[in-house]
Amino acid sequence: MLFSGQPGVYFLDPSLHRIKCLQIPPIQLLSYKLLTNIQIHQRNEKMASFSTAQDLFIPLGKDGQRMSYRLLGPSPSSSGKIPLVMLMGFRGTMDQWDPALIDPLAAQRPVILTDIPGVGRSEGAVPLSITEWAQSVVDLLIVMRIPQVDVFGYSMGGCNAQMVALIAEEYSGGKVKVRRLVLAGTTPSDGQGVKRFKREELEAFQRLAAAQTVEQQKEAFMKGFFGRCSEKSWAEGKKSWKRIAGARKKTMGQLGKEGSRRQGIAFAKFMGEGSLEKLKGLKMPVLIANGCQDLLLPTENSYLMYKTLPNAYLHLYPDSGHGFLYQYADHFSSLVNLFLDGEKLGATLTPSKL
Amino acid sequence: MLFSGQPGVYFLDPSLHRIKCLQIPPIQLLSYKLLTNIQIHQRNEKMASFSTAQDLFIPLGKDGQRMSYRLLGPSPSSSGKIPLVMLMGFRGTMDQWDPALIDPLAAQRPVILTDIPGVGRSEGAVPLSITEWAQSVVDLLIVMRIPQVDVFGYSMGGCNAQMVALIAEEYSGGKVKVRRLVLAGTTPSDGQGVKRFKREELEAFQRLAAAQTVEQQKEAFMKGFFGRCSEKSWAEGKKSWKRIAGARKKTMGQLGKEGSRRQGIAFAKFMGEGSLEKLKGLKMPVLIANGCQDLLLPTENSYLMYKTLPNAYLHLYPDSGHGFLYQYADHFSSLVNLFLDGEKLGATLTPSKL
Repeated sequence: MLFSGQPGVYFLDPSLHRIKCLQIPPIQLLSYKLLTNIQIHQRNEKMASFSTAQDLFIPLGKDGQRMSYRLLGPSPSSSGKIPLVMLMGFRGTMDQWDPALIDPLAAQRPVILTDIPGVGRSEGAVPLSITEWAQSVVDLLIVMRIPQVDVFGYSMGGCNAQMVALIAEEYSGGKVKVRRLVLAGTTPSDGQGVKRFKREELEAFQRLAAAQTVEQQKEAFMKGFFGRCSEKSWAEGKKSWKRIAGARKKTMGQLGKEGSRRQGIAFAKFMGEGSLEKLKGLKMPVLIANGCQDLLLPTENSYLMYKTLPNAYLHLYPDSGHGFLYQYADHFSSLVNLFLDGEKLGATLTPSKL
Repeated sequence: MLFSGQPGVYFLDPSLHRIKCLQIPPIQLLSYKLLTNIQIHQRNEKMASFSTAQDLFIPLGKDGQRMSYRLLGPSPSSSGKIPLVMLMGFRGTMDQWDPALIDPLAAQRPVILTDIPGVGRSEGAVPLSITEWAQSVVDLLIVMRIPQVDVFGYSMGGCNAQMVALIAEEYSGGKVKVRRLVLAGTTPSDGQGVKRFKREELEAFQRLAAAQTVEQQKEAFMKGFFGRCSEKSWAEGKKSWKRIAGARKKTMGQLGKEGSRRQGIAFAKFMGEGSLEKLKGLKMPVLIANGCQDLLLPTENSYLMYKTLPNAYLHLYPDSGHGFLYQYADHFSSLVNLFLDGEKLGATLTPSKL
């Protein structure tokens, strides 16, 4: 969908610190030499945090619909560090990340938050396949001129992240390569050994899908993400909810009814797409993480992905479910930093696994 | 076995930096007030590393047989940091740890290396039960006046570490408490779901048991610890072998034939002792780690321990076997430091697991 008819490219003017629209015929964009010097990214006078990062926009849709993103931490171009793009789960938007997870990551590397089309501040309709979600992410990275990226996907965003890793290089014509992948609280699509939802998991999913008021959203978050865990786990969940709610002045709320329905359709389609088999082709280091009893996407599937992927690390937490990354935000951000910064992790591959 | 008839207590004189023997009637030892001021540990003028740590001895056996240990990193008493005691596997001695794993740990905390009776420089015969191995470790900690300790056990040393965690508090009369536990490349004893050795695993074990020459030991290390993995894994194994071989001037070599036979008997006895069920009673945070295809102690058993223990973290590596902690010494030492230093890890417990 890239460059088909959008009116120009928006970027953050480095001197004025505001969004400008650069009128360039779309087809010329990638060869437009000036763009290599114009920093699309924020300058690094003061690194943006989760609370202070500005909303930025690039028109990528067929009719010029804008995709929104935020850039945190050091500048990708001046720091020379590989950015980490974060992909959120069902009904979540850029606003719903926990700053206690994001800020320690952004202290070490550029972090790109984004919403797929139709979610949060990204315009358009939610695409009806996760492959298209992944294409929109790669489109964004092409325009941002990010040739190498690490990708972190959570929950349904972890399905998106799998697809980004699977399609990025071919879809972008070699312009975007995924270096490392983090799959948090997520699942492969159906395949041999994949555990299906249990009844109580469907309940947790339906509660998430149906939540309209903030109170209902909080209840769905607490019960779905910290259900069946200890009081300590619940207390950490509540703290996380507060951190998220208090982090930014203007928030969008969760994705509405029609968008959620379309996300559900895309997820159902994904589950039939056989990504599990395809994962065997991903050679990059992958960190898979989860709580010990994920009520939404069974923890066993994280172990299965570990056994399937040729170059995967598995980290499972105690006393936690789908919300492990909120509950253990301190530890997990350190673990992700350790994984992304480890130099020796690009091992050649083992012929057989467990 | 503590204090039954040994002639005195040996300690490192803090001013003279040499071993002295303090003649105290054994029974009076624990109430001997002066000992609270006499530092058994080395002074912290220059922190000892794996290469430079001195051999220290405390007589603990019935006939005054000395148990050997080394103290690395900061002083337990003056740093106020909780020491980490490291327990080695089948036929290994204090000399066989990889300095690339040990030194980063000792940079953050006191590290105590020790050999059970009959192994390395520790006198006596190898006890015929792992419970007795664990008692000897607790004896050492009582005399060293280490009231709280973290324990790291590798392979057969991981069985020892389980037993230390299970017995320490009761056996020491509350004088020694295990705060956190690291179980690396190890197994619980037989129990529901425990995977038994495969034929090729028995071969790897037999090769380890039979190795007499240094060349045979190297072959057993490489094939048993890095078998079925990639060339990169093998190359990391060879580097580790070199690091270990070059780290200290005088080494003891691996445990001899009779000691190995007795270790084998103790291990076989342990496998019938049902530690798996008992592990449910360990409430402290436990980090379980392994490679993806451990040829000696099946990786599935690490996952089983994770599911059994109420407060466990699981970390599994790719492209690696029993030797994962040598292969990923950089990453794993960081992971262990992260686990031991995490303040929020002492969660109350979840009622059910996977």
